[in-house]
Amino acid sequence: MTNPPTVLETFDNPHPGRGYLIEHFVHEFTSLCPRTGQPDFGTVAIRYVAAAVCIELRSLKLYLQGFRDRGIFYEDVTNVILSDLVGACAPRWMQIRTTWTVRGGIHSVITAEHGARPAALPSE
Amino acid sequence: MTNPPTVLETFDNPHPGRGYLIEHFVHEFTSLCPRTGQPDFGTVAIRYVAAAVCIELRSLKLYLQGFRDRGIFYEDVTNVILSDLVGACAPRWMQIRTTWTVRGGIHSVITAEHGARPAALPSE
Amino acid sequence: MTNPPTVLETFDNPHPGRGYLIEHFVHEFTSLCPRTGQPDFGTVAIRYVAAAVCIELRSLKLYLQGFRDRGIFYEDVTNVILSDLVGACAPRWMQIRTTWTVRGGIHSVITAEHGARPAALPSE
Amino acid sequence: MTNPPTVLETFDNPHPGRGYLIEHFVHEFTSLCPRTGQPDFGTVAIRYVAAAVCIELRSLKLYLQGFRDRGIFYEDVTNVILSDLVGACAPRWMQIRTTWTVRGGIHSVITAEHGARPAALPSE
Amino acid sequence: MTNPPTVLETFDNPHPGRGYLIEHFVHEFTSLCPRTGQPDFGTVAIRYVAAAVCIELRSLKLYLQGFRDRGIFYEDVTNVILSDLVGACAPRWMQIRTTWTVRGGIHSVITAEHGARPAALPSE
Amino acid sequence: MTNPPTVLETFDNPHPGRGYLIEHFVHEFTSLCPRTGQPDFGTVAIRYVAAAVCIELRSLKLYLQGFRDRGIFYEDVTNVILSDLVGACAPRWMQIRTTWTVRGGIHSVITAEHGARPAALPSE
Amino acid sequence: MTNPPTVLETFDNPHPGRGYLIEHFVHEFTSLCPRTGQPDFGTVAIRYVAAAVCIELRSLKLYLQGFRDRGIFYEDVTNVILSDLVGACAPRWMQIRTTWTVRGGIHSVITAEHGARPAALPSE
Amino acid sequence: MTNPPTVLETFDNPHPGRGYLIEHFVHEFTSLCPRTGQPDFGTVAIRYVAAAVCIELRSLKLYLQGFRDRGIFYEDVTNVILSDLVGACAPRWMQIRTTWTVRGGIHSVITAEHGARPAALPSE
Amino acid sequence: MTNPPTVLETFDNPHPGRGYLIEHFVHEFTSLCPRTGQPDFGTVAIRYVAAAVCIELRSLKLYLQGFRDRGIFYEDVTNVILSDLVGACAPRWMQIRTTWTVRGGIHSVITAEHGARPAALPSE
Amino acid sequence: MTNPPTVLETFDNPHPGRGYLIEHFVHEFTSLCPRTGQPDFGTVAIRYVAAAVCIELRSLKLYLQGFRDRGIFYEDVTNVILSDLVGACAPRWMQIRTTWTVRGGIHSVITAEHGARPAALPSE
Repeated sequence: MTNPPTVLETFDNPHPGRGYLIEHFVHEFTSLCPRTGQPDFGTVAIRYVAAAVCIELRSLKLYLQGFRDRGIFYEDVTNVILSDLVGACAPRWMQIRTTWTVRGGIHSVITAEHGARPAALPSE
Repeated sequence: MTNPPTVLETFDNPHPGRGYLIEHFVHEFTSLCPRTGQPDFGTVAIRYVAAAVCIELRSLKLYLQGFRDRGIFYEDVTNVILSDLVGACAPRWMQIRTTWTVRGGIHSVITAEHGARPAALPSE
Repeated sequence: MTNPPTVLETFDNPHPGRGYLIEHFVHEFTSLCPRTGQPDFGTVAIRYVAAAVCIELRSLKLYLQGFRDRGIFYEDVTNVILSDLVGACAPRWMQIRTTWTVRGGIHSVITAEHGARPAALPSE
Repeated sequence: MTNPPTVLETFDNPHPGRGYLIEHFVHEFTSLCPRTGQPDFGTVAIRYVAAAVCIELRSLKLYLQGFRDRGIFYEDVTNVILSDLVGACAPRWMQIRTTWTVRGGIHSVITAEHGARPAALPSE
Repeated sequence: MTNPPTVLETFDNPHPGRGYLIEHFVHEFTSLCPRTGQPDFGTVAIRYVAAAVCIELRSLKLYLQGFRDRGIFYEDVTNVILSDLVGACAPRWMQIRTTWTVRGGIHSVITAEHGARPAALPSE
Repeated sequence: MTNPPTVLETFDNPHPGRGYLIEHFVHEFTSLCPRTGQPDFGTVAIRYVAAAVCIELRSLKLYLQGFRDRGIFYEDVTNVILSDLVGACAPRWMQIRTTWTVRGGIHSVITAEHGARPAALPSE
Repeated sequence: MTNPPTVLETFDNPHPGRGYLIEHFVHEFTSLCPRTGQPDFGTVAIRYVAAAVCIELRSLKLYLQGFRDRGIFYEDVTNVILSDLVGACAPRWMQIRTTWTVRGGIHSVITAEHGARPAALPSE
Repeated sequence: MTNPPTVLETFDNPHPGRGYLIEHFVHEFTSLCPRTGQPDFGTVAIRYVAAAVCIELRSLKLYLQGFRDRGIFYEDVTNVILSDLVGACAPRWMQIRTTWTVRGGIHSVITAEHGARPAALPSE
Repeated sequence: MTNPPTVLETFDNPHPGRGYLIEHFVHEFTSLCPRTGQPDFGTVAIRYVAAAVCIELRSLKLYLQGFRDRGIFYEDVTNVILSDLVGACAPRWMQIRTTWTVRGGIHSVITAEHGARPAALPSE
Repeated sequence: MTNPPTVLETFDNPHPGRGYLIEHFVHEFTSLCPRTGQPDFGTVAIRYVAAAVCIELRSLKLYLQGFRDRGIFYEDVTNVILSDLVGACAPRWMQIRTTWTVRGGIHSVITAEHGARPAALPSE
């Protein structure tokens, strides 16, 4: 029933002169294990410093729902989301961190970055 | 890719003479909103006192995955799960509680029971 | 900009034969202090056992937004919400609990109920 | 500098027909130890079912500030507050619970009640 | 390397005239899944009111280590521990609760009791 | 260096007409294991409804320090404290609960009571 | 009913020779979504090193209440608050961080800074 | 009843050759608002690297009690405490952080330092 | 019953061009104390930046189960796991941290690293 | 009854080539106040990078029990433990942090280090 958009939408950065930090924490993410077909569940943290445009939240939600029926490994999906979002908004800097629920007594966290972390970046 | 089983499997209660409490907490549950088609996320707590048979865990997991692509309201899915599990294992007593993530600043919890709560039931 | 509905909407209880518990936790509520005109902030917990109909969630959200510009005391708003919801869905039993942020080093909680608590009510 | 009022103020119970629960949690309370003159710090929980009138919050705050320079034991102050509030509002039921910070590796909690707890009192 | 004792040891209840509550919380328990041979991990809560004798703690620890290489289901091990401990100390009342780590997104809790819960039992 | 008093001191209950609850939570308690001579560490919760007299806090602290060099089992020390305090203040009701740090992966809690729990006792 | 002041008030920094850190955490903030007109709820953290003047707290509270009926995006309101406060007190350094409640399973945090972070700034 | 000492007492640093960190966390602090005369409540964290002498704890407690009846702003009291303690013990480095309870939905934290933070200072 | 694999399996790093961080948190680990033969329980955190290959999760789980019947000290097992994993996947950087349950009132944490921590490593 | 060893025992560092971090967290520590003779309670965190030898845990436990009957100030005991452990194992780097329970509404933390913190030290 889900209809992922073909493109991630953006809007003009209202304060492009400042290198401020935008963080979106996605609490509900699910994809499929490519080996077993079983569902994987996790969260996605998106942190970036916008350049000309910002990611529009509703299209972001729909984009991430597009993984619901897709078989993909943890390491891969993290990097794919990073590449897609970088392609959509060309940020100064971006970090994607996915955190996964326990499987076999182990839970995993994958973190990938794009661009040089700005010196003036607000502290976490 | 998910293949829900047509029936929930059970196994013989290894200690039918005792009215002991079995609780399964399902951390990962997702279905669809029947109005918007958007995904819903929640957890399911299953608590019961078995009679002749117990619910087999792997078939329970697959059964619950069968709601992944199904549009159904909170109140309805809670009662449907209760009825299906009662049909499968005929317990002395059973309670289903579903807890849902925030939508529009509100989160919901639905709790349904079947059978008289046994007087000797271990305290929560 | 908010347009509260003139009536709270309901839908048919999908399982009227079972006295199951429905809980809605509203994380975002604001009204005005009738003395000072200053904003009050709180949360609202709605717990009920439905009879013929259930409260529809989107109309509930809009109904509660209708207090945003209204001056009303803690004790009063709790009972008003209870009376309005009882009027809309005629439940077997209902409880409203409002929890308010700190004012002058004190925070308050108001809890009102309608109807006899059913003996078979699922435990909290 | 503090000027405790000679009387606790009240206002008419807006819903006297319902036996609803009112709880005020006072996070900031200080008095003096009658033996050493050293400050004591604690919190005060006030829970009651009003009859004809409710306790007005600002006069409650000022009343409790009146203990700031007063030497009084834990057990005594708890009962004094209960008696004063009962005298001011004549509730159906009232409970006062004071919780004190650690002294000599021990912290204390004192709880006193007035009136019979109503059968229909909302659960805690 | 573990050598489970053939019997659980006990010592004389030092205050047999009082029906007091003894609780032992075992943080480290592991057995094997009888189907897959994979390790299971959990905790065991033992709560009882002793009659003539109490369970000796070191022999209890060694007894529970005896499950380390044993394939056994959740429901079964809970009842086996209860029966073994009841056999060893003949308590007035006993409850065993096992809590298991997540498997397939589900964690389980099993609770079994022996004997009538004494009316004067201290509250939990 | 510790000098335990020969008697626990008391003071007159300032409000003997009310059956109010007094709770003292002792965060720092240590005794010795009678078998190994190794230190045991725990906490002690004392809950009671006073009759004519209340326990004086400083003498309570010194009394409990008297166990610092004493070899005694968990079950025993709990009942000994209860008996000593009952002897000192003859309460309407009293409960002692000791909670011990982990030994061999197990921690223990022992709870003993004296007297019938009053029907009007404030809820925990 | 809210009357935002036309200017943010300030008072003279009582210790201008020291570059000390001032932090105000605003727990209650609400504005409107410019697209839907629905209320947004969040918190605002204001951290700064004052130069000649400090922000007066009551006027800060009233200033922030001025957003209650205003439609504005997360990214925009964060930068507008920063610009307004910088305009009012010309600090050595200032950081504004807004944290928003969940919408569509996503919550957002926006952080903007003004001025070079002082080398001697106390650690967070 | 409180009698603040005219001087803060000190004792010789027992290990002056090591630049070790001393932290005192004062859980109970109260002063008065200079505008309204109402009590303010907060905590005070004192962190320093001693030179020749250390602050004596009992005189520190009495010194801080001296603010109980004094009207003074948050920003001011933080710097006054820092100056007084620096005057009393001439530390290599010192930091004072005061954290205040909520007023009008806002809580504040003020942090001031004296001296250069030593390079070898143990991490927080 | 456990059959540890002779080799840890790997798979090709799907994004070798990015120095992203992979973290696996193993919640269930047990080995034996080489002196007493008693079981030890702990957790293992594996954090690394992959080069050509990534560690396959199922073989990692089986590899770690291989310590179940092995007597080995905390310090040793941490370094052995690090050496084995470095041998299996030749990462740019790797850190192993083991955290152990309490023994004799003490719990331990051991952390070992291999390779230079990359400058561009995402922050923890 | 406690018999502190005359020397702290050590064992050969099994991996001397790696500068890995060893942390021992001692949950149970008690000494006496040198002024009042009253017991003090705290915890001790020991963090170090071993050179040729590691501290043996059982002798560490017994060594720390040797303070049970000793009157010593917070600042002093922290530095004494550091000096004794450095004398026993000559580490590359070591940090001792003691955390004490509340006395007079204040709790204290003392942290002392020996040796230069290694550049490659794993992050905390």
